[in-house]
Amino acid sequence: MPFDPEPQIRRHRSADVTLTVTENGVPAAGREMVVAQRNHEFLFGCTGFEFIPLANGELPAEPATGPGGGPGSLGEAEAGPVERLAERWLDLFNFATLPFYWGRFEPTRGRPDTARLRETARWFADRGCVVKGHPLAWHTVSAEWLTELSNPEIVEAQTARIRRESADFAGLIDMWDVINEVVIMPIFDKYDNGLTRICREMGRIPMIRMVFDAAREANPQATLLLNDFDMSAAYECLIEGVLEAGITIDALGLQSHMHQGYWGEEKTLAVLDRFSRYGLPIHFTETTILSGQLMPAGIEDLNDYQVSEWPSTPEGEERQADEIVRHYRTLLSHPSVRAMTYWGIADGGWLGAPGGFVRTDGTPKPSYEALHALVKGDWWLPPTTYRTDDRGQLRFTAFLGEYELTAAGRTTTFQLNSPGTASVEVEV
Amino acid sequence: MPFDPEPQIRRHRSADVTLTVTENGVPAAGREMVVAQRNHEFLFGCTGFEFIPLANGELPAEPATGPGGGPGSLGEAEAGPVERLAERWLDLFNFATLPFYWGRFEPTRGRPDTARLRETARWFADRGCVVKGHPLAWHTVSAEWLTELSNPEIVEAQTARIRRESADFAGLIDMWDVINEVVIMPIFDKYDNGLTRICREMGRIPMIRMVFDAAREANPQATLLLNDFDMSAAYECLIEGVLEAGITIDALGLQSHMHQGYWGEEKTLAVLDRFSRYGLPIHFTETTILSGQLMPAGIEDLNDYQVSEWPSTPEGEERQADEIVRHYRTLLSHPSVRAMTYWGIADGGWLGAPGGFVRTDGTPKPSYEALHALVKGDWWLPPTTYRTDDRGQLRFTAFLGEYELTAAGRTTTFQLNSPGTASVEVEV
Repeated sequence: MPFDPEPQIRRHRSADVTLTVTENGVPAAGREMVVAQRNHEFLFGCTGFEFIPLANGELPAEPATGPGGGPGSLGEAEAGPVERLAERWLDLFNFATLPFYWGRFEPTRGRPDTARLRETARWFADRGCVVKGHPLAWHTVSAEWLTELSNPEIVEAQTARIRRESADFAGLIDMWDVINEVVIMPIFDKYDNGLTRICREMGRIPMIRMVFDAAREANPQATLLLNDFDMSAAYECLIEGVLEAGITIDALGLQSHMHQGYWGEEKTLAVLDRFSRYGLPIHFTETTILSGQLMPAGIEDLNDYQVSEWPSTPEGEERQADEIVRHYRTLLSHPSVRAMTYWGIADGGWLGAPGGFVRTDGTPKPSYEALHALVKGDWWLPPTTYRTDDRGQLRFTAFLGEYELTAAGRTTTFQLNSPGTASVEVEV
Repeated sequence: MPFDPEPQIRRHRSADVTLTVTENGVPAAGREMVVAQRNHEFLFGCTGFEFIPLANGELPAEPATGPGGGPGSLGEAEAGPVERLAERWLDLFNFATLPFYWGRFEPTRGRPDTARLRETARWFADRGCVVKGHPLAWHTVSAEWLTELSNPEIVEAQTARIRRESADFAGLIDMWDVINEVVIMPIFDKYDNGLTRICREMGRIPMIRMVFDAAREANPQATLLLNDFDMSAAYECLIEGVLEAGITIDALGLQSHMHQGYWGEEKTLAVLDRFSRYGLPIHFTETTILSGQLMPAGIEDLNDYQVSEWPSTPEGEERQADEIVRHYRTLLSHPSVRAMTYWGIADGGWLGAPGGFVRTDGTPKPSYEALHALVKGDWWLPPTTYRTDDRGQLRFTAFLGEYELTAAGRTTTFQLNSPGTASVEVEV
């Protein structure tokens, strides 16, 4: 029998609500009211890298239009392609990952890109999104100037960098992929870099302790993640060592770039089974599912795959839409999963792969519509009119998240945070 | 330039000795003396499973001889095939691994095979060998009756078993593969077993702590190994977690069954580089190099490969001899390696593979002669006559190990334990 995630999704993600409405402390009996969902509790995430120029007012004042609009232009007068993309993004996601790759964030030592990232984080926060920074420590795209330092100096620079970003963004960014890919970090041998040097010298667990301590100290409110692409027993062993060493991890990040093919429900559930053993929240931090040709299975480092053109195809788009739906449903069926970040809404991102929900011409793929039909359809309560009973109560079943109740022109909000039966009292 | 291990072998394995010989406290000047090596410090090991019947007097009192001798008989009156094999074994190795697979050692609860194993351990010890027991905890070939117990009962049975064997064999077996293949233990899913159950529940590191504590408590003198086949970052992560947790590991066991092909120097040195970072002695615990067809590369669990016949071939035997020499030389070139255990002197062992140094008909392969030419040839000082100088001194360079000096019919022994320059005083 094929896996049916629906019962588990309902069980772990929705609440059977009895809403008791009062007005001036008295039950508002026999009244028509509108309940509407405002947001999901589940973090439906995506990278937001491409909106940095938009958030910082760096786009041309008037979008190029007409025949001279250049590639990518949609020829619309009122909104450029980035604005259109942003609209689509915000209609689907409530959780943004912003780039803090050290080598790009601070290519020249002492000149970090703090202001632009703060503007971008604020832009997302103003639109109701949770914002995560990615990553604070990683051997890839680390600052090149680190290699001119001694190991103690690299350690000092790394911890200072973490304290700086954690503090500078506190309140806007309270969630961080603190350290990325530690399983491979000390044995990474593709090129010399400062992070591999110190991780090899100090060991993985002391390295993790150091960067988590720095992040925790600078922003005690933050949710701090360990993030890795290695889904083997290696990551399990690392996690067990970290937990035995008494280091507090707030959530486990599992990457899941599927350029070589969708994992399928069985593998996904097996991964969840293995990594949920630690009782920690799980975030799927980096997911890609292609709508074009798959990368050959033999390639171990996805960066090794270089093609001049990697088109999205009609068959690929149908497959992607199906796999997207299956994957999101599988994840939501497991109670440990608290977040799912898709790695790029539009095609042409990392590796040039057709991994987005939106084509390079700005049009949405079937996967966009399919995911939207879950996030804002099956799993969403649109404005719905109810009539309260004699005790001022109304009942409905809905997904966890933020809701608003509108009665007689007045709107109030409430949260559904726990699955199961919920009794909520609201004063209108 | 190809890797030349010789300078490192000399550097890490041999000593330039100045031997000062006295007689009644006076320098024995101008005297002829014979120096001869008795043993290697390096542990050249092999499994000794097949000698349990021999050590216990369980073989037929008179070996079958002549045409009616049956298969495997060499037709010799004075020694049967097992005795011949034992002679070859003892001429090459100084370190025996004996089987303590729980499911075979104690198939019926409360009836362990202690007496036979003690006899066998004593048989090897009497012949100058160090003896190691393998393993005290493993999910494979664990006792089937464990599956009828509750998890707390399995924990109690496992630790009691370790304490029992450690104490019963102390003095004869002071070296143990305490726990085997922990990387995969909690996620092993081929069949239900008691060890996977408790490891999954308690976690890898607490499991390791528990079994090491039990072994250490019962025999504080023992050398205790963690042993695994997983040469990936997973084992590194496990080791780092174990060390961070404050668990003392006396040596790291690295399995290296090469049924799918010899690793080659590059991979071997890379593995040594990664696993020597912890400053722990390294034992190559289980090595197999074939003299027949290789197992296809795609097979992940070697046990999945089943063939009715797996012959040793002339070309395979030449290849094996070459690879054996290269592998032993590579290992001895690295100072962290203290032991190398070959997995079965004779063909027809695990999986029926042609992995031995001796064919099923009892004749030695080229690999036997080649390894012998190192262990008892290039790396060995045969009885050699020297003349002491005016100060009673003589000089020689030799491999670390045990030596004897014979002068005027009297023999005394001495040890070379440290590489480099050594000054040794001997009274004859």
